[in-house]
Amino acid sequence: MTTINAYGATAATKPLGPMTIERRELGPRDVLIEIKFCGICHSDIHSARNEWGSAAYPVVPGHEIAGIVARVGSEVTRHAVGDRVGVGCLVDSCGDCANCRKGEEQHCLKGFTGTYGSVGQDGNPTQGGYSTHIVVRENFVLKIPEGIALDAAAPLLCAGITTYAPLRHWGAGPGKKVAVVGLGGLGHMAVKLAHAMGAEVTVLSQSLSKKEDGLRLGADHYHATKDPETFKKLAGTFDLIVNTVSAKIDVNAYLSLLALDGVLVNVGAPPEPLAVNVFSLIMTRRSFAGSLIGGIRQTQEMLDFCAKHHLGSDIEVIPASKINEAYERVLASDVRYRFVVDTATLKE
Amino acid sequence: MTTINAYGATAATKPLGPMTIERRELGPRDVLIEIKFCGICHSDIHSARNEWGSAAYPVVPGHEIAGIVARVGSEVTRHAVGDRVGVGCLVDSCGDCANCRKGEEQHCLKGFTGTYGSVGQDGNPTQGGYSTHIVVRENFVLKIPEGIALDAAAPLLCAGITTYAPLRHWGAGPGKKVAVVGLGGLGHMAVKLAHAMGAEVTVLSQSLSKKEDGLRLGADHYHATKDPETFKKLAGTFDLIVNTVSAKIDVNAYLSLLALDGVLVNVGAPPEPLAVNVFSLIMTRRSFAGSLIGGIRQTQEMLDFCAKHHLGSDIEVIPASKINEAYERVLASDVRYRFVVDTATLKE
Repeated sequence: MTTINAYGATAATKPLGPMTIERRELGPRDVLIEIKFCGICHSDIHSARNEWGSAAYPVVPGHEIAGIVARVGSEVTRHAVGDRVGVGCLVDSCGDCANCRKGEEQHCLKGFTGTYGSVGQDGNPTQGGYSTHIVVRENFVLKIPEGIALDAAAPLLCAGITTYAPLRHWGAGPGKKVAVVGLGGLGHMAVKLAHAMGAEVTVLSQSLSKKEDGLRLGADHYHATKDPETFKKLAGTFDLIVNTVSAKIDVNAYLSLLALDGVLVNVGAPPEPLAVNVFSLIMTRRSFAGSLIGGIRQTQEMLDFCAKHHLGSDIEVIPASKINEAYERVLASDVRYRFVVDTATLKE
Repeated sequence: MTTINAYGATAATKPLGPMTIERRELGPRDVLIEIKFCGICHSDIHSARNEWGSAAYPVVPGHEIAGIVARVGSEVTRHAVGDRVGVGCLVDSCGDCANCRKGEEQHCLKGFTGTYGSVGQDGNPTQGGYSTHIVVRENFVLKIPEGIALDAAAPLLCAGITTYAPLRHWGAGPGKKVAVVGLGGLGHMAVKLAHAMGAEVTVLSQSLSKKEDGLRLGADHYHATKDPETFKKLAGTFDLIVNTVSAKIDVNAYLSLLALDGVLVNVGAPPEPLAVNVFSLIMTRRSFAGSLIGGIRQTQEMLDFCAKHHLGSDIEVIPASKINEAYERVLASDVRYRFVVDTATLKE
């Protein structure tokens, strides 16, 4: 066991603060990573505050990890000391079920091991990336290609793959009309990725306040959803709508924007069920679907795609001491478009 | 105009009875069909009783039509006098929109012309197949191959294509596990078709009362949905679930039965919206979709497939005078599996 510095929550109602945690000894197939940057995802806030109801404190969040390999186990072949690497939302899975064998470890039938908030192979709770080091099984460590800065790469490990996966799965590309609902951490990546894939991209945001940004990020069109005219004008338009908003939406209004065989895919889940008018699905054979992050192989593919297209996240780098403040700003949608913690500030 | 015998409703609250209606003169691309048989679809009841709220009386229902070509217009090339032909739910569409050009006339962006309850090209209301003759544009007339009896073929024009289309669209075939919810007019065709396509077929019915039938029709497994164990045992099993039940269901319970990338497709729409827990979709990337009958090209493909596999509908042939009684039996699910009106009984 190695004791390291971290920043986490000791209770649902207390602010996060500095703490120390233990990392397991390096197994033969493990990689020790010196974390350089870790993105702040909305899930981190839910977990730190026990809003999903299963937190075991202390909780050290963070599953958008970018760093450098510091040491490798005796049987590690995929990574070497000094490599630029990343870790996303999963650090282990059974490897043996039908879904793992397909490379869809995020859908492991025995349940994947989350980067934080799960139980690791040593039997202890896993702790995330608001920390200086992490030990991860080599198969779950991604290579961050040269050409993406580590700080801008960190959010790709969750926000990037969460949007890349549905865009690829439902065929975003030349000749396809893709809409992105919400221009936040996920949405801004969805716009960049869909544009780089060659799709015609439309942002559907509550207001036009981020229009300039949206167009700069690669959107071809930008519409305000608070304007009812938007839903009339764009009826039957899109092949794919990626909904990055976890709040309750009028799903039938969005379904009406789909063309023949169009798919509305949610990458987040509102706590309340959504009322679907089945008639909205039957007309022009529409689908309402969901997508959850992505498998390891596809996450690597996404990182390579981002390197090739010079894509990273738009970020605001902060010291660990500003994490609580950043949480409030995330909740107020006051971030363009992802906070990234500089973990060097944990060493002080 | 030609006056012909028919059987229809003069008001929402009155039983159907004999009447005469007019058919338009044969245009150069029209086909006059002597109707031999017409299936009774649940939609007929909704329309006759104005349960969808748009009926203009009189209403002659019937969109599962099988007959013989009696006369053809001067420019007709696809059909000849004496041919065995069928007409389904549509008799016209714009032919020019993106969806029509893809052969998906049922999703015509200008709205298709229904076999009854629409306005025909002569400006008069269209009237359906509970009648001795019908005039239809040749492009909307299907060939019924030798090898399917006309009476057993009639229900294929709606119940057959309604289930064939989603099975084909979502890839039912060898190695795929397909569940059919409900074993009625649509469900019994879904079982036959999915089995003939090579899929492993499971019937999910409220009780086991039709189990013997289900297995005879081609199902490999049969489970009662009123038994909560069914949902535990079959969790994560199916690649495709075709829901033929238009009543409100617990959609999340059915979604939980889908494997990775599984699709639950509704071919009917309950009047109330369904509450979808988005988490059910996100887990294993499931989809909830809808499908509406099928295009003309695919309807012909379905008829040819049925002929090749010696498939027809299981039917109970009745005289027109029993239509009202048959409606009550349809509503009581007391039919195995489709009533078909012998239209010779209209000539008396």
